[in-house]
Amino acid sequence: MKINGISYRSVWRPSDDDRSIRIFDQTRFPWTVEILELRDAGAVADAITTMQVRGAPLIGAVAAYGLVFALQDDASDAGLNQAADMLIATRPTAINLRWAIERMVARLESVPAPERVTAGYAEADAICDEDVQVNEAIGRHGLDLIREIWERKGRQGQVNLLTHCNAGWIATVDWGTALAPIYMAHDEGIPVHVWVDETRPRNQGSLLTAWELGSHGVPHTVIADNAGGHYMQAGRVDMVIVGTDRVTAQGDVANKIGTYLKALAAQDNNVPFWVALPSSTIDWRVRDGVKEIPIEERSGDEVLFMTGLDADGNADRVRIAPVGSPAANPAFDVTPARLVSGLITERGRCEASETGLRTLFPDTP
Amino acid sequence: MKINGISYRSVWRPSDDDRSIRIFDQTRFPWTVEILELRDAGAVADAITTMQVRGAPLIGAVAAYGLVFALQDDASDAGLNQAADMLIATRPTAINLRWAIERMVARLESVPAPERVTAGYAEADAICDEDVQVNEAIGRHGLDLIREIWERKGRQGQVNLLTHCNAGWIATVDWGTALAPIYMAHDEGIPVHVWVDETRPRNQGSLLTAWELGSHGVPHTVIADNAGGHYMQAGRVDMVIVGTDRVTAQGDVANKIGTYLKALAAQDNNVPFWVALPSSTIDWRVRDGVKEIPIEERSGDEVLFMTGLDADGNADRVRIAPVGSPAANPAFDVTPARLVSGLITERGRCEASETGLRTLFPDTP
Repeated sequence: MKINGISYRSVWRPSDDDRSIRIFDQTRFPWTVEILELRDAGAVADAITTMQVRGAPLIGAVAAYGLVFALQDDASDAGLNQAADMLIATRPTAINLRWAIERMVARLESVPAPERVTAGYAEADAICDEDVQVNEAIGRHGLDLIREIWERKGRQGQVNLLTHCNAGWIATVDWGTALAPIYMAHDEGIPVHVWVDETRPRNQGSLLTAWELGSHGVPHTVIADNAGGHYMQAGRVDMVIVGTDRVTAQGDVANKIGTYLKALAAQDNNVPFWVALPSSTIDWRVRDGVKEIPIEERSGDEVLFMTGLDADGNADRVRIAPVGSPAANPAFDVTPARLVSGLITERGRCEASETGLRTLFPDTP
Repeated sequence: MKINGISYRSVWRPSDDDRSIRIFDQTRFPWTVEILELRDAGAVADAITTMQVRGAPLIGAVAAYGLVFALQDDASDAGLNQAADMLIATRPTAINLRWAIERMVARLESVPAPERVTAGYAEADAICDEDVQVNEAIGRHGLDLIREIWERKGRQGQVNLLTHCNAGWIATVDWGTALAPIYMAHDEGIPVHVWVDETRPRNQGSLLTAWELGSHGVPHTVIADNAGGHYMQAGRVDMVIVGTDRVTAQGDVANKIGTYLKALAAQDNNVPFWVALPSSTIDWRVRDGVKEIPIEERSGDEVLFMTGLDADGNADRVRIAPVGSPAANPAFDVTPARLVSGLITERGRCEASETGLRTLFPDTP
């Protein structure tokens, strides 16, 4: 997607230097767009640990290059396995990170050591390209929905979408998941406008989604998480589209805390509520999301304090609740499948149900 | 209610000085508890304009004393009317302010000028006392509900309540509306715990409600507005109780933005959703709240900036969204009566419907 008219991916290899990658320092978004050069495995591990790269698909892709950098120093089996372990340990719970590293190791084990760097770059490039392809496919399948709304409105006014949290291109290699259809609709000239939920307490909506959309030129408005229901009542939301951290076999959707409230409001006002996801997000072992998915409880300080830019342009952290008042901070909630209009995957759209998912993914055990 | 063990009202006349009132500077809550002395009409007008006093019932009571202060300098008819106009103009849309001043003028017009100051203090005192009585009655009728839950739970654990925004004692002369039953339950020894919605964008929950409850010693936890639905799904909310800015003749409830989302979640999880209000809040002229009540649109800066205490303990305002991203900020939403378990008024509880309201208020035209 674009920043000030220039197209970027979230990770790339510069044409004049085939032994390094470039990423954005995402800890500095949205205040500063700073490109970092990474050329050794330690720097990659640091970038993951400090969340300079974030978003499950992006972490996996960047880690894959980190493994290749390690092979440049030591392409032996021992070197390969040691680097793999070190990289997986940077974010032990990240599914995509483990997946990407295990794919790299599986590919490279059978390659003679002197050829591993070249083969490794090819495989890491393939991981990136496949992530882009998956998201692009999600975008096309979601674009159809936006186009239908635009036609139904007689190509008048604009299509108003609402999203929660950040499921955009900077969390993936490109396109994003929930935002991919929106970028495509905007790029083909459909006048889209996005209500961006602030997404308390970490504000990924107002900080990241608003910045992404603004940088690409997509009209948007930041709103408090409290406001979406009112806008749906007022007929000012044509569709809700969100990403997800985990979809169960029966179509329940775990996503950023507050998603469930928007799904309830969408149902109450007959607003379509769609969830965009790569199929790697489906957890076939879990059925009842409300009962079975453990919800991460994060530090209450994320609720009690807020970081922003002060009048001098410096990042400052302020306390926004009384000393002595505790806070609780569940990071995710589960939206039952009955509230979900449908799922958008790289293979197409389906009902949020076991039947729906099995129709698209008959080959999954 | 209590601050550090000492009982206060939000406005009072000190026993050693019968020509002044005391208020809290509410612009400094929750960081500082500062008591202000007001002894002339101009100071009262300033306190209202700058929101040192806030909350519709409290503004009316304080303004009534302001009128008496003016009469101390000029008790003529001209002086009375001029002071009334000046005070009403401080917050032109505040219903209770106009109501209180008009009540004072109606009472004092027929009183000879030399006796107006004494009669004025008596009437202003009566306005305060009546506000306390109304809220105390609301508290008693709401307390029954909390007690029933406590009995139903076999007097085990605690009663978990969730509230949105601030409908507490500092918005009234004492007790508050939604918080009155909670204070009474706490005071009679029922172990209550309150989930306090932060209430973005102005954070009246985390700033005012958390402070009120903490100062009185009521256990509570601040949560992001996004979290309430999850806690209801998890069975960790026994009842939702909120205040309201306007209730229509059919029981629709206008209240702080985001209330509607909590009502939807309450219904989806069979959690009782109650609204506490003095009957002066009922707008008998309006039926369909969603269609008929205009929603105030406030400055987007309330979404884009946040004020809190920095590490040095100074109030600081920080930007929390990218430059160039606009924000929208509807201040209220309307919860349809169908989502409301019932209304708690000073006359008792009723169904949120025209029939319910007419049963309690058969005398209203």
